[in-house]
Amino acid sequence: MDERAALALLEGELAAAGDDAAAVDGLVVTTDMLHERTDFPDGTTRYTAGWRAVGASLSDVAAMGADATAAVAAYAVPEFDRDELLAFVRGAREVCELVGAEYVGGDLDEHEEFTVATTAIGRTDDPVRRSGAEPGDLVCVTGTLGRSAAGLELFRRADREDDASLRERANDLFRFEPRVRAGRAFAPHATAMMDSSDGLARSLHQLAGASNCGFAIESDAVPIADAVRDVADGEREALEYATTFGEDFELVATVPEDALEAVRSESNVAISVIGAVVDSDDGITLDGEPLADRGYTHGE
Amino acid sequence: MDERAALALLEGELAAAGDDAAAVDGLVVTTDMLHERTDFPDGTTRYTAGWRAVGASLSDVAAMGADATAAVAAYAVPEFDRDELLAFVRGAREVCELVGAEYVGGDLDEHEEFTVATTAIGRTDDPVRRSGAEPGDLVCVTGTLGRSAAGLELFRRADREDDASLRERANDLFRFEPRVRAGRAFAPHATAMMDSSDGLARSLHQLAGASNCGFAIESDAVPIADAVRDVADGEREALEYATTFGEDFELVATVPEDALEAVRSESNVAISVIGAVVDSDDGITLDGEPLADRGYTHGE
Repeated sequence: MDERAALALLEGELAAAGDDAAAVDGLVVTTDMLHERTDFPDGTTRYTAGWRAVGASLSDVAAMGADATAAVAAYAVPEFDRDELLAFVRGAREVCELVGAEYVGGDLDEHEEFTVATTAIGRTDDPVRRSGAEPGDLVCVTGTLGRSAAGLELFRRADREDDASLRERANDLFRFEPRVRAGRAFAPHATAMMDSSDGLARSLHQLAGASNCGFAIESDAVPIADAVRDVADGEREALEYATTFGEDFELVATVPEDALEAVRSESNVAISVIGAVVDSDDGITLDGEPLADRGYTHGE
Repeated sequence: MDERAALALLEGELAAAGDDAAAVDGLVVTTDMLHERTDFPDGTTRYTAGWRAVGASLSDVAAMGADATAAVAAYAVPEFDRDELLAFVRGAREVCELVGAEYVGGDLDEHEEFTVATTAIGRTDDPVRRSGAEPGDLVCVTGTLGRSAAGLELFRRADREDDASLRERANDLFRFEPRVRAGRAFAPHATAMMDSSDGLARSLHQLAGASNCGFAIESDAVPIADAVRDVADGEREALEYATTFGEDFELVATVPEDALEAVRSESNVAISVIGAVVDSDDGITLDGEPLADRGYTHGE
């Protein structure tokens, strides 16, 4: 059974499953486990790892349209190193501060592989689900897509060329601002929302499944990060990176057209309209062609 | 740097560190990572693992005197097995139900070693800390101590003798009721509280450090689980198991003498008075002899 099948199995078991975070009693809660082999390429600093791991959970809070309250992390390594641990905590704390949450520590453990489990908590009385998108709504994306794809490629190049400045740039690309403020801007208006951590294409398929709708996306409206163009071989490959790689932690949301200006005025990041919600019979298309359900599956 | 040194380092960094859970904004939050090699002996069922892992975090919520609201778990295995995953979720859910919390799922991950990271959340406006014990207060313990020590020994015997019924008994001993209701009973009165997960002796040293006090404990008042006597060689070894092994998830609390009856009347489990808080100059003693700071360090 692969991870997606296991997730599907759990959705039948747990009422709270199926959104980016579970909503319970005015809170949203989300947890993620990341580990060295699959999530932190060689050259990732512990500062970046702390930022990214905690940021990933804060992104799930943002995707529910909630305020971010607090985050914790369990940090496991083969052997504790003072500077690494402090750098991790600093990254975790700074990403929390950026979105108004408090980093309140966690657990330490010895483990053969560097492994981090993070949990973030937010507050909202009216969480935004993945279900609820209606034909005619606009499809919106925050920020730009492809930063993590570009970062991963730069980590590889930095490794091959043993280039410290490339490695630093890759680390920069691996840190991101969780879209808590944009999520709050979307919250009163969005009909459906999630984050793009599995890639835009897969996110659209997941929203379509939950909302029973289709999407008509225009490729020239997809906001591609500049860094992608430095590593991609042409515009077509850049679009491929931006739509399928994922791990970008931007928000994908659907809103009625008349709410767009209100959302944009409350958001601290650019919001691109990349297409429209259509009837489920019309499928999920990019420039009129079917957009496959391809993307990053965590842990693969 | 070992785990205790790393924890001490973090206490300087994080204002919220040093109690069983972090208190933030009317909530308490706690996270734990457990893994196969050190936390789940051969023969531990996934049902027991789910119960125990989530129960450990709920115990930390209880130790703050908070109501338990919700728990999540990140579940990582080399390969997903449907029955194992469902058994884990059932254990996690049942321990939550037992204390009135909601199990709201979590994350799945592939990992070479079975690893679980759990987070529990509770609510209280007035968390009970480890600091605050005053000379003259009574030292109380919930339930009985030594169940996990006995369970571990039975897992070993079950392995040697390939005995399924011994294994089942060991699993029973490895599941426990998190003391949320007792923690709520202590909350209005306790001057200091924590859980006994590192063993009674170490817990007393931690409380003494945080409260700047000493303890005079009477060995014949320490509540030893019956199961310990089945595996210990005599009363002296039984006491050793009960005071130093830990992993029992009972509460250790200090209360003014006149509050004892009120606490007992609200608790659903027996509360033993094992001694008294004394001046820090008088140290931590068991039957008048110094009680060493020995116990289980997680991850060792």
